[in-house]
Amino acid sequence: MKTNRQWRLAARPQGIVQNSDFEWREEAVPALADGQVLVRNIYLSLDPTNRVWMNDVDTYLPKLPLGAVMRGFGIGVVEESKNPLFSPGDIVQGLLNWQEFAVSQGADLAKLPKLPGVPLTAFMGLLGHIGLTAYFGLLDLGQPKEGETLVVSTAAGAVGSLVGQIGKIKGMHVVGLTSTDEKCKWIKDELGYDAAINYKTENIHAALRKHCSKGIDVYFDNVGGEILEAVLNLVNLRARIVLCGAITQYNSDQPAPGPRNLSVLIVKRARMEGFIVTDYLNRAEAASRDLIQWAQQGKLKYRVDLVEGLEQTPSALRKLFDGSNTGKLVVKIGPEPGEGRSQHAG
Amino acid sequence: MKTNRQWRLAARPQGIVQNSDFEWREEAVPALADGQVLVRNIYLSLDPTNRVWMNDVDTYLPKLPLGAVMRGFGIGVVEESKNPLFSPGDIVQGLLNWQEFAVSQGADLAKLPKLPGVPLTAFMGLLGHIGLTAYFGLLDLGQPKEGETLVVSTAAGAVGSLVGQIGKIKGMHVVGLTSTDEKCKWIKDELGYDAAINYKTENIHAALRKHCSKGIDVYFDNVGGEILEAVLNLVNLRARIVLCGAITQYNSDQPAPGPRNLSVLIVKRARMEGFIVTDYLNRAEAASRDLIQWAQQGKLKYRVDLVEGLEQTPSALRKLFDGSNTGKLVVKIGPEPGEGRSQHAG
Repeated sequence: MKTNRQWRLAARPQGIVQNSDFEWREEAVPALADGQVLVRNIYLSLDPTNRVWMNDVDTYLPKLPLGAVMRGFGIGVVEESKNPLFSPGDIVQGLLNWQEFAVSQGADLAKLPKLPGVPLTAFMGLLGHIGLTAYFGLLDLGQPKEGETLVVSTAAGAVGSLVGQIGKIKGMHVVGLTSTDEKCKWIKDELGYDAAINYKTENIHAALRKHCSKGIDVYFDNVGGEILEAVLNLVNLRARIVLCGAITQYNSDQPAPGPRNLSVLIVKRARMEGFIVTDYLNRAEAASRDLIQWAQQGKLKYRVDLVEGLEQTPSALRKLFDGSNTGKLVVKIGPEPGEGRSQHAG
Repeated sequence: MKTNRQWRLAARPQGIVQNSDFEWREEAVPALADGQVLVRNIYLSLDPTNRVWMNDVDTYLPKLPLGAVMRGFGIGVVEESKNPLFSPGDIVQGLLNWQEFAVSQGADLAKLPKLPGVPLTAFMGLLGHIGLTAYFGLLDLGQPKEGETLVVSTAAGAVGSLVGQIGKIKGMHVVGLTSTDEKCKWIKDELGYDAAINYKTENIHAALRKHCSKGIDVYFDNVGGEILEAVLNLVNLRARIVLCGAITQYNSDQPAPGPRNLSVLIVKRARMEGFIVTDYLNRAEAASRDLIQWAQQGKLKYRVDLVEGLEQTPSALRKLFDGSNTGKLVVKIGPEPGEGRSQHAG
């Protein structure tokens, strides 16, 4: 019998996630019932939404009960199947959770196409929910026009780094906010941002005013809080504010007050709109074609921040919130098919 | 020579407007230059925007300098004209300001049609910017659907009372918030609201939860602040929040924090959008046809809260902010043509 190593949700976090909010468990992988599929997990995606799922509230998914295996999106390989739609060796993605093996009914799994030259981790970033979030958030809600000014918060993050580059592809003046001088340099020199602001060391209001001399037409908001308020003071007529996340709020039981200047939306006839990428999955194919093409043309670069070993997952999650993460954060749990088994994968 | 009695802006108000923020001035009406029109003002419209115009900031109009005649929208009659487009006796509307006589270049004046049976004050409410604000705000931004739930703040106010009734015409479940039991009774019994909440005496969260058992699809926001936060907790998927005003913010130099739960917009894929009615003036004719028809069918009722005498204007403005106003607030400065001269008009 195989052993399944898991992280289970042990406590509702107060503020920043602690390792003690999770419990390490090892249990036998059960025998499959008819219709079930056994997946060996290879990559786990870490995203701000993981933190939200730990709270005692329903979101777009029901809340996770204490004691359950921690919820997470992943990519794995089918090891065994009693479901006619899946065969051993198929590469699949879905909510595989923080564990080494997932038993699935199949309905919640999607098979990944084999794209020559495209690494599997690209399906977690560029070609996964990350790329689609950047694509539909900016293009559908942001409605960018050539020559307009785009501001991106968490500009070096998984989603933000793609948003800024797609903004450049669309001919915008793109200004990014991020947390270190190294990331500022990366988004300007490598990703082509027109300006970068270190929000930890610079005066956000003054820096935005300087770099957005024609005002702000589109703001891709990943953080809420103070940066949103600073942006609102500079928005142009009919500006579009795309609410993709609110990282500053995720770790807090007592959410911080919202921006004091919401009435700017009236004076500027501006719009603020939230979205969830899963609403756009029926248009994912066309979007992925664009994203692959841009990547092949060298217009879309992205980084994977790879952490090795399921054991590291709780501490890796904190990297999303302390500014130490650059690019798509992924935990490698086991080897890809054909690859040597990694030392962490036991 | 005629004397022009005026209220001039004397100080930038701190908080609630004081009479001392205005200075009473009497000066001679100047002789007209070529192209100019002399208007004798009859009605002045008082609206929350008057308060905003007193601040030391540009809005959709440039800020008003200290010492200038206070800005206001009004209706008057042409007494003398050196402009071929206007003749004595024409009824006109425009920014006539807080004074007895206005000298205009004509370009900023609109002639009013003579509609039998329609009182002149209707052009300040139902057929003026008030009616158009309710109409375009609810129908264009709110996109109401039959059976949906609409919440209206300042539900007994000039705009709100029309919004609620148009919501009923469109088959919505309509819940209004207002400040006295008398107004609650009026909007339920006379205007047809399904439920009314006294936000000064009731628990807003609990009352909204009770009366919006299917959640909230459209919120017509005239106030911002705490009510917006309570509404956000109950919005349905793809809700539309129409930001028409933010009365709780108008009197404050240090605006209150915004709602702490803006991230609801993400989870619910909801939209918050501001608008200014002047953007819709090119569609005013079609809207006015609908509004007149609904009024003639008895489906749209409205109240005029008429204050007599230019002298009363500063104190009348405060009625908008202390909850003592019901319906469209209008100051009568002088008689309509053919009417006996009012005692206040000097």
